[in-house]
Amino acid sequence: MIGIVATLKIQDGKAAEFEAAFKEAMAAGGANEPANLFYELVKSRTDPTVYKVLEGYTDADAIAAHSSSDHYKALGPKLGPCLAGRPEVELLDGV
Amino acid sequence: MIGIVATLKIQDGKAAEFEAAFKEAMAAGGANEPANLFYELVKSRTDPTVYKVLEGYTDADAIAAHSSSDHYKALGPKLGPCLAGRPEVELLDGV
Repeated sequence: MIGIVATLKIQDGKAAEFEAAFKEAMAAGGANEPANLFYELVKSRTDPTVYKVLEGYTDADAIAAHSSSDHYKALGPKLGPCLAGRPEVELLDGV
Repeated sequence: MIGIVATLKIQDGKAAEFEAAFKEAMAAGGANEPANLFYELVKSRTDPTVYKVLEGYTDADAIAAHSSSDHYKALGPKLGPCLAGRPEVELLDGV
C-alpha cells in the first residue's frame, strides 16, 4: 500500500470553483480505479485556502494508472486557475 | 466525512517495536469500527523516524467511537515508549 498526502493552496475566493472542479473529477475517478483504496478531498479547519487530498493505492502501478487516467489529466487545467502555488505531494509507504 | 492526518515521530532504533504494536492495534480495530472508512499507517520516504496515520471517518460520532474503543486505549501505553514526542493530530473536513 502507498499513501499520498497532497496539499493544495488555493486563491482567496476560489473555494466554490475549486471544490466543484474537484468533485467532478472524483466522481469520474472512483468508478474507474479499483486499485484506488481511498481518495478524499478534505479542507483545513484553520485555513480556508488549504485543502488536502488523502489517497491510498495498492501499489505503484495503481498510482501510475491514476496519473495517466483521463480524469486526472483533465483535473490540472480545471484546478490550475484556482491554485495559489504548486501542490505539495508527499508519498508514504504502507507499513 | 472527516479525515485525520496523525504524524508520529519515533525514537531511533524503535521502528520494529513501534510497527509491531501498531499493527496489532490495527488488526483489532478494523473489525470493530464499520464507520471507519480507512485507517492506514504509512512511513516517510525521507525520514525513517516519521510515520503518519491516514484516517477517514463517516462523522464525528465515528471518531468518538474510535477514541473510546478498547484497542485505541491500549495503543497509547504500547506506543508511548517508542515515541520521540507528542503526536500531531490534524482534523480535516470532507468536501
